Amino acid sequence: MKKVVLIPDSFKGTLSSTQICGIIEQKVKEHFPKCEVVSIPVADGGEGSVDCFLSALGGEKVFVTVKNPYFEDMQSFYGILEDGKTAVIEMAACAGLPLVEDRKDPRKTTTYGVGQLILDAAKRGVKKIIVGLGGSSTNDGGCGAAAAVGVKFLNQRGEDFIPTGGTLHEIAKIDLAGKADVLRDIEIITMCDIDNPMYGPTGAAYVFGPQKGADPETVAFLDEGVKNLARVIKKDLGMDLSQVPGTGAAGAMGAGMMAFFDSKLQMGIETVLDTVNFSSVIADADLIFTGEGKMDTQSLRGKVVIGVAKRAKKQKVPVIVIAGGADENIEEAYDMGVTAIFTINRLPEAFEKSRYKSAENLAFAMDNILRLIKGV
Amino acid sequence: MKKVVLIPDSFKGTLSSTQICGIIEQKVKEHFPKCEVVSIPVADGGEGSVDCFLSALGGEKVFVTVKNPYFEDMQSFYGILEDGKTAVIEMAACAGLPLVEDRKDPRKTTTYGVGQLILDAAKRGVKKIIVGLGGSSTNDGGCGAAAAVGVKFLNQRGEDFIPTGGTLHEIAKIDLAGKADVLRDIEIITMCDIDNPMYGPTGAAYVFGPQKGADPETVAFLDEGVKNLARVIKKDLGMDLSQVPGTGAAGAMGAGMMAFFDSKLQMGIETVLDTVNFSSVIADADLIFTGEGKMDTQSLRGKVVIGVAKRAKKQKVPVIVIAGGADENIEEAYDMGVTAIFTINRLPEAFEKSRYKSAENLAFAMDNILRLIKGV
Repeated sequence: MKKVVLIPDSFKGTLSSTQICGIIEQKVKEHFPKCEVVSIPVADGGEGSVDCFLSALGGEKVFVTVKNPYFEDMQSFYGILEDGKTAVIEMAACAGLPLVEDRKDPRKTTTYGVGQLILDAAKRGVKKIIVGLGGSSTNDGGCGAAAAVGVKFLNQRGEDFIPTGGTLHEIAKIDLAGKADVLRDIEIITMCDIDNPMYGPTGAAYVFGPQKGADPETVAFLDEGVKNLARVIKKDLGMDLSQVPGTGAAGAMGAGMMAFFDSKLQMGIETVLDTVNFSSVIADADLIFTGEGKMDTQSLRGKVVIGVAKRAKKQKVPVIVIAGGADENIEEAYDMGVTAIFTINRLPEAFEKSRYKSAENLAFAMDNILRLIKGV
Repeated sequence: MKKVVLIPDSFKGTLSSTQICGIIEQKVKEHFPKCEVVSIPVADGGEGSVDCFLSALGGEKVFVTVKNPYFEDMQSFYGILEDGKTAVIEMAACAGLPLVEDRKDPRKTTTYGVGQLILDAAKRGVKKIIVGLGGSSTNDGGCGAAAAVGVKFLNQRGEDFIPTGGTLHEIAKIDLAGKADVLRDIEIITMCDIDNPMYGPTGAAYVFGPQKGADPETVAFLDEGVKNLARVIKKDLGMDLSQVPGTGAAGAMGAGMMAFFDSKLQMGIETVLDTVNFSSVIADADLIFTGEGKMDTQSLRGKVVIGVAKRAKKQKVPVIVIAGGADENIEEAYDMGVTAIFTINRLPEAFEKSRYKSAENLAFAMDNILRLIKGV
């Protein structure tokens, strides 16, 4: 083997994509010392996404003082990729749940800092900004971020304010006129791996509100607020976003990115594949290793493994999947470009026990796959 | 691939060697329809051993009326291999535990029928008899079998009797003079995969007596009987067998086979490999699949997988191991000839749960190994 490409999803709850790349790379180097290894840890938009892009493509981390979820100053960051033309922002870096661990309250928290990061990147002259959603403490529909770039939110009395989850219901009018000019010619891509709508039983507040600290009463209140935001967006901006899949992501930040930043929502893996220029990366590869915590029927609907496999199939590069588990009824994966699937469970053990051995188990599985490739 | 050889151990408690061969063969045929598949289900000496040999090498099953463990007539069997020169006997076929399920008593049961099977095979003119130990209901040190071929056991008063577990202590003298002449030039190989000595804490009575129905008092009594047998064998036959590994197998039948039948004890796998003429079978094979329930440090000491790997290594044929589980510290296996090890646990599940999915899990693992081989 002369070249392999590693592009695994994380194993949720056990190993990050970066860790997995590291383990596989080490094993490949052990068995094929001269093989070129290209590691592309996959970002899903959540915490760690900036590092994933920087590690795959090179670039630098820019540190900026912006507002945290409680409008207090904090040092946050984003990435500028090697080409100098693309910025990568993860909203968790200034609106994340870990930042408010002891004072969770999605009625009060803001995405204002995210807007500041976008603006800062724009002013540096990038042509494209990738914004990763996920791990947020907010439920403000992205209004905070919008306010930071000059979008105006007015209440019934015509007063300008910065809405948070608890005041979304007060929005009567939205005015984009003051939005920063510098954003005009920048393509903004929003990475979002979930497909919840803005509001309702599967919306932002009901599904993700509780983990952000909302009790049932607050959830209902937040949901009403998002519903009002959807109504005003439709009225003033002419966009009916309420049922668009993904608009409910990250406290309805998905909707805000579409409405206020003219962004499209895109699966993390598609964004990664586009950004790394995957087809040229694999053009001369002998083999691709991808994987995920569990291969199941969900996996067949566009998650990392299938995203990778579909592109690899066109170029006839074999794709080996390493997974923590593999469910029934995934045979379709083979037609979609997967060459073979291996699970890492070295012993018949329940997840409660095996989860602490994921790294060793992965190393063992990889070791033997490579031995097989070398030996036959 | 033009030819593969399948030679797996059973997965104890879940799949027999024959079942495993069947599953692997089906998968090989699916992916490599033109590939020749040679299946060698591995006998360990216990129940099913005759069928294993017959299925690997062809031949016929001979049915004979002999004594069951209670000296009652029963229809039993043995195998004559295709070459007509080798007989295979499993002692379980007339001295097995399932034959006395409701009246277990190792003081009374006999291996007499085993001697009758040996004699019958000998009279047919075979040159070699393989006797598989295992799954016995007896603790008679093989004295019953010996008596059936003419060996005399005398008590203090010089009276001839057929000892059972409960009367071994009465043996005062052993006389081989009357042993059937027909056995003289026949090589007898005893298959035995355990290494317990005749008596003592790790001997026949203490380790295996309880599962044969002996209470603690009976165990001690049986142990004394075996000790007496060892003493008389030493005195009259000049063989000190008491500490020889394997002599405690199958109610000290291991000792009886050595003392009365001039047999050597041999691991099941070595017997199988010799009998099938393994080196010529694999000479033109592309790949060997073997496996066992659990690969562990024990496996490295001569069980099926390593037995196979060592021979394959000499001929540089790759060996793939499929296992239900793989423990730590088995890296040595690779030096011993194992190419790669794959475990079949499709999901992180405890054995209590996964054991019922062994067949599907094995099929899934094999399917993907073959896809990998085909795809890269």
